Amino acid sequence: MTWTIYLSGEIHTDWREQIEAGAKQAGLPVQFSAPVTHHEASDDVGVAILGAEPNKFWHDHKGAQINAIRTRTLLGKADIVVVRFGEKYKQWNAAFDAGYAAALGKPLIILHQDEHAHALKEVDAAALAVAKTPDQVVSILRYVINGDLSGYTEALDAAQ
Amino acid sequence: MTWTIYLSGEIHTDWREQIEAGAKQAGLPVQFSAPVTHHEASDDVGVAILGAEPNKFWHDHKGAQINAIRTRTLLGKADIVVVRFGEKYKQWNAAFDAGYAAALGKPLIILHQDEHAHALKEVDAAALAVAKTPDQVVSILRYVINGDLSGYTEALDAAQ
Amino acid sequence: MTWTIYLSGEIHTDWREQIEAGAKQAGLPVQFSAPVTHHEASDDVGVAILGAEPNKFWHDHKGAQINAIRTRTLLGKADIVVVRFGEKYKQWNAAFDAGYAAALGKPLIILHQDEHAHALKEVDAAALAVAKTPDQVVSILRYVINGDLSGYTEALDAAQ
Amino acid sequence: MTWTIYLSGEIHTDWREQIEAGAKQAGLPVQFSAPVTHHEASDDVGVAILGAEPNKFWHDHKGAQINAIRTRTLLGKADIVVVRFGEKYKQWNAAFDAGYAAALGKPLIILHQDEHAHALKEVDAAALAVAKTPDQVVSILRYVINGDLSGYTEALDAAQ
Amino acid sequence: MTWTIYLSGEIHTDWREQIEAGAKQAGLPVQFSAPVTHHEASDDVGVAILGAEPNKFWHDHKGAQINAIRTRTLLGKADIVVVRFGEKYKQWNAAFDAGYAAALGKPLIILHQDEHAHALKEVDAAALAVAKTPDQVVSILRYVINGDLSGYTEALDAAQ
Amino acid sequence: MTWTIYLSGEIHTDWREQIEAGAKQAGLPVQFSAPVTHHEASDDVGVAILGAEPNKFWHDHKGAQINAIRTRTLLGKADIVVVRFGEKYKQWNAAFDAGYAAALGKPLIILHQDEHAHALKEVDAAALAVAKTPDQVVSILRYVINGDLSGYTEALDAAQ
Amino acid sequence: MTWTIYLSGEIHTDWREQIEAGAKQAGLPVQFSAPVTHHEASDDVGVAILGAEPNKFWHDHKGAQINAIRTRTLLGKADIVVVRFGEKYKQWNAAFDAGYAAALGKPLIILHQDEHAHALKEVDAAALAVAKTPDQVVSILRYVINGDLSGYTEALDAAQ
Amino acid sequence: MTWTIYLSGEIHTDWREQIEAGAKQAGLPVQFSAPVTHHEASDDVGVAILGAEPNKFWHDHKGAQINAIRTRTLLGKADIVVVRFGEKYKQWNAAFDAGYAAALGKPLIILHQDEHAHALKEVDAAALAVAKTPDQVVSILRYVINGDLSGYTEALDAAQ
Repeated sequence: MTWTIYLSGEIHTDWREQIEAGAKQAGLPVQFSAPVTHHEASDDVGVAILGAEPNKFWHDHKGAQINAIRTRTLLGKADIVVVRFGEKYKQWNAAFDAGYAAALGKPLIILHQDEHAHALKEVDAAALAVAKTPDQVVSILRYVINGDLSGYTEALDAAQ
Repeated sequence: MTWTIYLSGEIHTDWREQIEAGAKQAGLPVQFSAPVTHHEASDDVGVAILGAEPNKFWHDHKGAQINAIRTRTLLGKADIVVVRFGEKYKQWNAAFDAGYAAALGKPLIILHQDEHAHALKEVDAAALAVAKTPDQVVSILRYVINGDLSGYTEALDAAQ
Repeated sequence: MTWTIYLSGEIHTDWREQIEAGAKQAGLPVQFSAPVTHHEASDDVGVAILGAEPNKFWHDHKGAQINAIRTRTLLGKADIVVVRFGEKYKQWNAAFDAGYAAALGKPLIILHQDEHAHALKEVDAAALAVAKTPDQVVSILRYVINGDLSGYTEALDAAQ
Repeated sequence: MTWTIYLSGEIHTDWREQIEAGAKQAGLPVQFSAPVTHHEASDDVGVAILGAEPNKFWHDHKGAQINAIRTRTLLGKADIVVVRFGEKYKQWNAAFDAGYAAALGKPLIILHQDEHAHALKEVDAAALAVAKTPDQVVSILRYVINGDLSGYTEALDAAQ
Repeated sequence: MTWTIYLSGEIHTDWREQIEAGAKQAGLPVQFSAPVTHHEASDDVGVAILGAEPNKFWHDHKGAQINAIRTRTLLGKADIVVVRFGEKYKQWNAAFDAGYAAALGKPLIILHQDEHAHALKEVDAAALAVAKTPDQVVSILRYVINGDLSGYTEALDAAQ
Repeated sequence: MTWTIYLSGEIHTDWREQIEAGAKQAGLPVQFSAPVTHHEASDDVGVAILGAEPNKFWHDHKGAQINAIRTRTLLGKADIVVVRFGEKYKQWNAAFDAGYAAALGKPLIILHQDEHAHALKEVDAAALAVAKTPDQVVSILRYVINGDLSGYTEALDAAQ
Repeated sequence: MTWTIYLSGEIHTDWREQIEAGAKQAGLPVQFSAPVTHHEASDDVGVAILGAEPNKFWHDHKGAQINAIRTRTLLGKADIVVVRFGEKYKQWNAAFDAGYAAALGKPLIILHQDEHAHALKEVDAAALAVAKTPDQVVSILRYVINGDLSGYTEALDAAQ
Repeated sequence: MTWTIYLSGEIHTDWREQIEAGAKQAGLPVQFSAPVTHHEASDDVGVAILGAEPNKFWHDHKGAQINAIRTRTLLGKADIVVVRFGEKYKQWNAAFDAGYAAALGKPLIILHQDEHAHALKEVDAAALAVAKTPDQVVSILRYVINGDLSGYTEALDAAQ
């Protein structure tokens, strides 16, 4: 079985690449998916394809709806949803994705720093794991998918 | 039929009371529900009932999970979900509720000021109405539930 | 048990009133629901409440989405969905409602004249009854809800 | 992941072929599906296989139900549903498919000319994109599936 | 809570009346529902309301579909489904109802004589109780709904 | 796409083999599934594996439940369900499967001779096609899956 | 809104009565449901109604299935499910109910002493609250349903 | 079709290996899945990855939630769920899994010794087979998947 992992949220650091590299190094049978992370493309896709809008609200609306074709489809197909909240910005789309995934019954891993813990308590309460680093997410995936846990299962492996 | 309206989000202004008063004045057959809006109670409910936690994360976690018993149940029973984003704070729980309601297929009305429009574009894109004032929400409820629209249906009423 | 009957489609004749009157006369335990049938209100509701739009497309869009709050909610709660296609207009919203109801597994009764039979064959194929007159719909409701069928069950009633 | 795209609606122009050709040229991992577009076969399939019907209604009914085996199955498996409304005919089956797909929660792209915008406003209100040309649909698919947007992501590609 | 019990199957004996009388005597909070049990009305309802059909297949088809409006709705609303197989006839509609109810996850009680046990083994295997008499069904309802069991709970009642 | 076709019902003639041979000859991308059709094995599987039962009811019950592991799983995975009713026997399991498939929303093709039409009217009313011969089923599959219809699409093929 | 609370698990102490009394005292709009808690009736119901079984396995089986008619129906209707694990016995039915409720998405409150915490960790991990006393469950219900929290909301009440 | 079999429950004997070996020997097209069966890893995974917890409850909680990412995902994807109860321990997680699988409609096979039959009667009542040995489970899988039954189908094979 190949596991599908949707990586939602913050798009300004390389956390997705870190998780993907870690998963690759661990040889995990995973396929990652994500929203379009090119900020300008994501903002302008509606008007770029379907025509300009003088009103910024509809400019945003057309783009957000096209992005939703991608994000809701990939969220719906994911086995596990990871949502990262960064240090800055409102990131309401990340929290929206977390709620959306929770209602679909998807296992949620939330990734954020301590400073946001209180503000994210409702989101964290819907998660099955709250991590601080991409490495921890990779460790969770290794355990969940392959049953490997550093310091535990190697001993077993070595003994066999 | 009585319509059930869940009022999610910002808890620092009286927008819920305004909507409820407007609905009452219009004689709408509605029942409103909401999260517990007493801030301290909502924060502390877990430890107040189930015992203190030295670690703030678990303090928050126990409370947030008890709040989830209420919020997910009421969201699940709502015919319409209204989510208001205020001027301040992260309000990730509001966005989480919006995503949760969207995945359940609930009709969403989002209520916020123009300044947040860009940051909320993904949330707005999942909504069937984006309003700026509680009055507008009341007008939508009047139309949706009773078919009344100021300037249109009174003429009809008067003629009959 | 009270049955809920959603009456979708054509808004220019009094077919809804005929069905409601027939059901009342038959003493059926039914509750009827319908879209807002005031044509101008239905067209303008979005801009009337949420503000004018210079672009007709968004004018229509805002209104159609508010109407969807009502129609999808009531369709979702209906036990039986009746969709009438009139002689004129495209009536794509009627066909949309029929498809929506079919996917929800709602029993569908389609009401139209013979001249539209070929064009409506895919819609009719999803229905459990295809009627030509409101009277026939009332007769179906009488039978389905109360088990009464003219010329059959009166004999039984009389004998008892 | 291979995306499955169902192309519903108008069968008299080559819009399906244009979208398929565009997707192929863009190298998209897509699989297209559609109703049977051979008009006479689609009309007569019921009687051709299961025996003649003197009554045109049942002639149509038997065919429409066999067509429904195909269309409902493929709609149910689609990741994205595109519905095109042409210049002529009632096209109630197209609107029915749009409603059916909407109730299943499928992302909808509606394709039509401006002249039908008002009549299609309820259908458009359920869509995540309203396009006018097959090219726009291809551009949406390119963006949604591969994250490519002309004028935006090439710059990024070129820079790398 | 009022329990809704759907009584499907054989229509030639008074087993429904026996169960209803027993439930009434026991004071159970139940509401019974059933298909239309007037044989001729049930056979002819399609043509009686919607017009004659020279072909018997369509005569039957129109009637069976109208009956389905009632039966599928009531089956869908039932808390418990009881299906009785009589001594005679094919009774494929009874087995169809049992399968339909099983797929909906409804608790099934099957009622038949020993002689049909082998032929009904797949149906019985989907049931939570297989009874031989209406009295047994009443006893099950008394226990399931009120917690009363003759010879057991009276002792308790008496002691209190 | 490979279509999965579940062939339920009568096990005494070679109708399954005929359909499979016809589908193979037509080169259809299909995978067939079916209950275990070895009559004695099907009857005795429960006691053969899990131990003898002196009571015939439990003998049957244990076997029928193991058969249900297979049949419900395969029914649940099928794209199309074909149910054949033969000339003899009660065949309540066939009608049960038809009801089960109907409640899951599976497209149903029913296969039987005219003599059973009246007794099967409720089952037929839930079907999208009622055929009399395995050949007709093959023709339906050819059309539904490949869009081929004898006498119609060859002309098109020849012209190309 | 009346909340429905299912009280599953241990039947040897009066914890249900304590919760019901506490809820009554607090004036909560709740309706409680539970399995049949008369131990002998629950064990023997199958044979008492449907006839003796010499084999204890089938004796148990018939009873457990009749109990399932009640428990699965009431679990399915519950807004909140409380499961108590007592000091003694295997109580696998309690854990089964917890898993059943979790898969249905019901908010779970688990009630047990510290000594069982490790053995119940998977069950607790699916819960939204883990309580030790019936009083705590009442406090949770008071908060969740009425928004009352001792030491917090009285102050508010007093001030108003 | 490859069948996916989830093996839940007892982790102290080699019953999983026996079933897997038997399935392999029979050449069954199956894929087995299971919880992480390394006891210490399973207990400590939460703190090992996400940081130590002084409170044993949260130590367990963090681990159990990460295990739930694996177990709920694999249970959700399984075609058949086998749950084994061993001689010792509370094994509430096994009963929880059985309840979870039952609510998802998964075919359940329960594996245990006679001594636990009474305590497991509610769990067994939800199962489609109750076996005592891994060999019996293999025999069931052989029959369900391939239609092979020792003493029955070989005769057929030999005759062909």
